[in-house]
Amino acid sequence: MLLFLLKTKALESAHRDGASDGKVITCKAAVAWGPGQPLVIEDVCVDPPQKMEVRVKILFTSICHTDLSAWQGENEAHRAYPRILGHEASGIVESVGEGVTDMKEGDHVVPIFNGECGDCVYCKHDKTNLCEKFRVNPFNKVMVNDGKCRFSTRSDGKPIYHFLNTSTFSEYTVLDSACVVKIDSEAPLKKMTLLSCGVSTGLGGAWNTANVKPGSTVAVFGLGAVGLAAAEGARTRGASKIIGVDINSQKFIKGKAMGMTDFFNPTDLDKPVHEKIREITGGGVDYSFECAGNVDVLREAFLSTHDGWGLTVVLGVHPTPRMLPLHPMELFDGRRIVGSVFGDFKGKSQLPHFVKECTHGEVNLEEFITHELPFSQINEAFQLLIDGKSLRCLLHL
Amino acid sequence: MLLFLLKTKALESAHRDGASDGKVITCKAAVAWGPGQPLVIEDVCVDPPQKMEVRVKILFTSICHTDLSAWQGENEAHRAYPRILGHEASGIVESVGEGVTDMKEGDHVVPIFNGECGDCVYCKHDKTNLCEKFRVNPFNKVMVNDGKCRFSTRSDGKPIYHFLNTSTFSEYTVLDSACVVKIDSEAPLKKMTLLSCGVSTGLGGAWNTANVKPGSTVAVFGLGAVGLAAAEGARTRGASKIIGVDINSQKFIKGKAMGMTDFFNPTDLDKPVHEKIREITGGGVDYSFECAGNVDVLREAFLSTHDGWGLTVVLGVHPTPRMLPLHPMELFDGRRIVGSVFGDFKGKSQLPHFVKECTHGEVNLEEFITHELPFSQINEAFQLLIDGKSLRCLLHL
Repeated sequence: MLLFLLKTKALESAHRDGASDGKVITCKAAVAWGPGQPLVIEDVCVDPPQKMEVRVKILFTSICHTDLSAWQGENEAHRAYPRILGHEASGIVESVGEGVTDMKEGDHVVPIFNGECGDCVYCKHDKTNLCEKFRVNPFNKVMVNDGKCRFSTRSDGKPIYHFLNTSTFSEYTVLDSACVVKIDSEAPLKKMTLLSCGVSTGLGGAWNTANVKPGSTVAVFGLGAVGLAAAEGARTRGASKIIGVDINSQKFIKGKAMGMTDFFNPTDLDKPVHEKIREITGGGVDYSFECAGNVDVLREAFLSTHDGWGLTVVLGVHPTPRMLPLHPMELFDGRRIVGSVFGDFKGKSQLPHFVKECTHGEVNLEEFITHELPFSQINEAFQLLIDGKSLRCLLHL
Repeated sequence: MLLFLLKTKALESAHRDGASDGKVITCKAAVAWGPGQPLVIEDVCVDPPQKMEVRVKILFTSICHTDLSAWQGENEAHRAYPRILGHEASGIVESVGEGVTDMKEGDHVVPIFNGECGDCVYCKHDKTNLCEKFRVNPFNKVMVNDGKCRFSTRSDGKPIYHFLNTSTFSEYTVLDSACVVKIDSEAPLKKMTLLSCGVSTGLGGAWNTANVKPGSTVAVFGLGAVGLAAAEGARTRGASKIIGVDINSQKFIKGKAMGMTDFFNPTDLDKPVHEKIREITGGGVDYSFECAGNVDVLREAFLSTHDGWGLTVVLGVHPTPRMLPLHPMELFDGRRIVGSVFGDFKGKSQLPHFVKECTHGEVNLEEFITHELPFSQINEAFQLLIDGKSLRCLLHL
């Protein structure tokens, strides 16, 4: 921790000198050269931030399943190489481009893949956190401003593609200012990394999308970081029963430690899990969270809720082409289903307050960080996630 | 009108004598003997109401598409003959069974196919109007109390099945008291018939389910009675644009008369109707209502709403087996879809107030009654609906 503080101070000092302002920075990044190929830690060039952009020194980054999908090139349309993946991180502003007034070098920040410009019809609407220009878009591989890359290979100056508005698998990255949130400098940056994606998504799903009520019942399908964060969101809202469902019973240990009350492994049951859930909840849970990205799981999550008022929040990322496995008439049973992106948080305006809630201990962030490794071991970190061994492996840059 | 009043007074007088209390009544009913076979007006016997039941003298009834589907036996499981169909009506209580305290003979009532017992976990929940025992169930063909029929053939005493808790194609019918709403005796009974189903469903869809806001934009798919009622609900809430969509352009005449502002006939367009709707609304409507019972229409209705906050309310009855034509990831665009039964009205507790709103002219009920015929011409009334010529044909019993 002391070392970290010293490093941070040194960085802040360097930034205050403005030594790198307006110049191309050469630094280490983990570059994806092809689907499923081990990432290569190599020197890349990072251009200065352009108008309304921010260049950030990344201090911590972690890996979420969306990085995994993109790395494996699961979706043909997502394939773009070379590319710098990564979207869950925290860091310090190195320099800002023209027009950026809400941040300056040295500010502590977290990147957000689902940006907030603050000006569009969406940002001004109270029912959505989808920004017109900077919403999450895994197909976008360049900066929104000019359609160009800010990364290039050091060897031959060829462009390296961006990912999810963020590209945090790099010591320095350039982001639209709409995709960078300034947070309290007192907040522990390492843990704040989690707020970039997984924890905000799950916890916001429970807080913002579902608006879980005290005393209510909840089922969470898929106990990865997002699922556990949804459970944590339900716990902090006073849910009376929080049921975990996963086909890996090992995950129940962590779930129990985090306050979940009941568990089902569908592979151990002689009937569909929604029937078991209905049995122990007097007809079904008030809220279910689908965090597995699987339509069969989604159907179970839907049927696990109480008819009349049950709400299913879809948080998992679903591959094409399978459609929603619901008949229109099933909606007449009063069960509802909604999607939630980034936990319905408007990133720039709401995350700073969320950071405070996390800093004051209301939310248990510690449990999500199961591993820490140096940035150079990023491929090992990927493997930990693939093997279901890590929730979040923090990489130190 | 005078004749009607006189008849009503005479009936009330007869009821006050209690002449038929506790006795089997013989009266005319329209009996369905097989799928699609013309209904037969014949003498049937109607048993006295049992515990917590009410026997009602039906004065007006009309026909909705659910009657049509059941009559045509569209769904194998719905086929039960002989049967007395009908669920949209109004009348006067003839007698009440043991335990009924909220109604007495002579009271003006409308039947509701989606009952409200007032005691179950659903009735006590503020998020649903689905009663545990008396919710709409087209498969149910007998009384809930004892699983028996209150109708029988006069010729040989064989049971005649019930329909939708109501069976209003009969001069007298027996209903669970949970399925009968006492309304203000000053309200014009003929028009109140509409509140039994179509108008409440559509208007409640706009008022209760969608909670349409002033100045918002709305698209209605399918301009039958339910669709026009949804439009009327939107109009009374101050919607700024109410777009009608139907493949029968004749329906636009009535839509325009009722305050709808724009119309599209998809068969006249060179692109999907949702694209046209998005064009004229700056990205999509705030609310869409699917009143056609067709999954392709439903998809258009869904895509016609604005991403980020658009809400689609499903009011149409959809035949099996076609599933919701949506990919889970489409929910991540922030569009929502919900079903609505009986316009989310809790019938017994909320309809009396709705009756007052209609009586005071806030809602335009006149336009929905396009035809009136004597009960004996019920088959002609069916044909008018099949041919798309009537919105509601009131039958006088």
